[in-house]
Amino acid sequence: MTQRLLHLNAFLMSTGHHEASWRLPESDPYASVDLAHYRELARIAERGTFDSLFLADGPVLFSDVGQRPSGVLEPLTLLTALATATEHIGLIATASTSYNSPYNLARRLASLDHVSGGRAGWNIVTTAGSEAARNFGLDAEPVHASRYERAADFLDVALKLWDSWEDDLIVADKAAGVWGDARKLHPPRHRGPYFSVEGALNVPRSPQGYPLLVQAGSSENGKRFAARYAEAVFTAQQTLGDAQDFYADLKSRTAREGRDPGHIKVLPGIVPVVGSTEAEALRDARVLEEHIVYEHGLNRLEHLLNLPSGTLDLDAGLPADLPPDSAVEGSRSRYALVVELAERERLTVRELIGRLGGGRGHLTFAGTPEQVADTIEEWFRQGAADGFNIMPAVLPSGLGRFVDHVVPILRARGLFRTEYGPRQTLRERYGLPRPANQYASALA
Amino acid sequence: MTQRLLHLNAFLMSTGHHEASWRLPESDPYASVDLAHYRELARIAERGTFDSLFLADGPVLFSDVGQRPSGVLEPLTLLTALATATEHIGLIATASTSYNSPYNLARRLASLDHVSGGRAGWNIVTTAGSEAARNFGLDAEPVHASRYERAADFLDVALKLWDSWEDDLIVADKAAGVWGDARKLHPPRHRGPYFSVEGALNVPRSPQGYPLLVQAGSSENGKRFAARYAEAVFTAQQTLGDAQDFYADLKSRTAREGRDPGHIKVLPGIVPVVGSTEAEALRDARVLEEHIVYEHGLNRLEHLLNLPSGTLDLDAGLPADLPPDSAVEGSRSRYALVVELAERERLTVRELIGRLGGGRGHLTFAGTPEQVADTIEEWFRQGAADGFNIMPAVLPSGLGRFVDHVVPILRARGLFRTEYGPRQTLRERYGLPRPANQYASALA
Repeated sequence: MTQRLLHLNAFLMSTGHHEASWRLPESDPYASVDLAHYRELARIAERGTFDSLFLADGPVLFSDVGQRPSGVLEPLTLLTALATATEHIGLIATASTSYNSPYNLARRLASLDHVSGGRAGWNIVTTAGSEAARNFGLDAEPVHASRYERAADFLDVALKLWDSWEDDLIVADKAAGVWGDARKLHPPRHRGPYFSVEGALNVPRSPQGYPLLVQAGSSENGKRFAARYAEAVFTAQQTLGDAQDFYADLKSRTAREGRDPGHIKVLPGIVPVVGSTEAEALRDARVLEEHIVYEHGLNRLEHLLNLPSGTLDLDAGLPADLPPDSAVEGSRSRYALVVELAERERLTVRELIGRLGGGRGHLTFAGTPEQVADTIEEWFRQGAADGFNIMPAVLPSGLGRFVDHVVPILRARGLFRTEYGPRQTLRERYGLPRPANQYASALA
Repeated sequence: MTQRLLHLNAFLMSTGHHEASWRLPESDPYASVDLAHYRELARIAERGTFDSLFLADGPVLFSDVGQRPSGVLEPLTLLTALATATEHIGLIATASTSYNSPYNLARRLASLDHVSGGRAGWNIVTTAGSEAARNFGLDAEPVHASRYERAADFLDVALKLWDSWEDDLIVADKAAGVWGDARKLHPPRHRGPYFSVEGALNVPRSPQGYPLLVQAGSSENGKRFAARYAEAVFTAQQTLGDAQDFYADLKSRTAREGRDPGHIKVLPGIVPVVGSTEAEALRDARVLEEHIVYEHGLNRLEHLLNLPSGTLDLDAGLPADLPPDSAVEGSRSRYALVVELAERERLTVRELIGRLGGGRGHLTFAGTPEQVADTIEEWFRQGAADGFNIMPAVLPSGLGRFVDHVVPILRARGLFRTEYGPRQTLRERYGLPRPANQYASALA
């Protein structure tokens, strides 16, 4: 039996995941729309034999342009450009089920899968927030539950579209003038609660059949959805215990859906600040914290907690009378995590903003390469993770340090691949089967 | 004053524009989803210093998979992959205003413009046909006029989104912690008949400001739309006289919209079959015609003419009692062109299918490189064209022959560039200005 190996995903974000990263002397404040910047990140990640690259997304201008780099490239576009600049690494793009049409998005993902030779992944999001809704003709966002109902209908259509061509439809009989076997084409004729889609996709079935299906919502609705559809899950967990609980819960939910729990990979996010000594790492982390503009953090925290502007005091704790998370229509799991973090560690609002500035609720960790590798190994061996979503505080330098100093330790410990080996699809790299075609016929 | 130069666009289509091209021994019937095939085409076109590459599109599986290669890659995805494999050539993707949301499409086009260094173009189509409508939850297609009203509203929103960031918004003041000047951000707050879009784009203004705006509908509604918005127009014209009329009409309509008629480039399609002698060219054209499956052509012609299956007789002419083109809800200009072609040249249905097989109504032309160059020069000098949309019958060989044998003649005659020179945006290459920002403020 081969040893179980870690999976590592590089979560790319302009100058880094720390909100103040753009202010460091080394950072290019125009990086977010610079293809060369992302090409360099992709090359570093491939040097580190990462499984995949990942880009978050929402169809909205999230942050105040006065505060920090705000414009980005649309993820499927950027990852398609990176597909031709890379050879092995997977390309996971976030796209919303609330603000796309299944026919269009299924086409684009299948096309990226063809163009990349089977390296496409889709991080399925439902997109919280009324700001996004108002960019699509809606006055307010759809309620939390109905967003997930729509997502399920969207997935059902998308899977039908990706299966609408059987793998061996094309016969290419030039002499007879017959290109394909029309009996192997299966128009979905889907009539669901949200979507009606009649015709077959206009893209042949792609190398992976479906792109790798990824999900990142950790609310009750999110976990139910993940157990049913997802093959990899990004999650924000602050403690080993919480991560173990989440891991066990998701694996057992997946089994209850009749799926192999080995076919859903749990990847907590980690924001590593790696130094050659612990003191150096802590100094780097402190420099980042000193560059935070706290008034901006205050505004964002009030927004996340659904509080009127001016409610919070930087040098006090969170108020005791916060609404329950079931009242939140946005990101419920993030809301709960932030409130718990503040309570557990009795943080002032200022301290909380400092902690969130690094990773927006993900585990932030400053230390030596060995210390980072120890944490990764501990979580991996103790049932908390199948791998990690690496979110460097500063890019590209933080990814470079992780690849050059942490990855060699993980390799030496036999926890991570030392080379890519023969070309594989993204799904193969994550140890997942190629999905059978739901319409596969018994035709000769 | 510099001499007026031709513009050449390479219209790419799997194994070529002739419907039987895939059946030739040289053709790869899997080419339509093969990135390497398109990379080769792009390299040939760049060798020929073409202005741009172009891909047609509809969000629907158009043709019968039994008859000919039917699956394709989504154009913006494919052109994004080609952006990183090319350096100079423009990338014009077709996308529908009927089946996209302005926020999503504006983002994708701006992102391609960033990724390509200002080489993105958008061929704006309204998408005829109920088959497409049924892939998007509609029972039937929107009527012809309302499709164009929606397109106009779509353009108005898209232009506002592309202008929502002033060019100099980003200040990147690291010391002060100020990334951008929020006063230079202009959320559209658009409330139109079809679209409501509140917020600013989440992509900074792109190198070209807007992608090159291209249009290809030649109906009355299409021409009105082109005169208002388009900077380049693809058109199917069978005779010099018709092409001159179209050219003059479109230029004067553009002037009446208050625009410079030099800022709309008219590019008729031409399907050249180039041989080293006229006999060789005619033989190649005949080989292609012999590979047409006429029953398939019959079905498609009946569909285009809105006739019940079985109406047409291969060895007779078109029936005299065809409905007027105003009764057609699909491609009106193509309908009229086909009927006129059959009448003018007294073609049987079989002959008509043979003519359409090559270029679906575009000018097909078999001859020596000199003869092809003569026709191009004649149309260019006699007020029928600013350039051409080159649609090789067979790909890649037909594009290679055009580049290696026709382009040198055009260059020798001083009609076409001999090299790209310094890097230019697509808009600069077509001699068009970068659009001013409609919100540009007088802020210091």
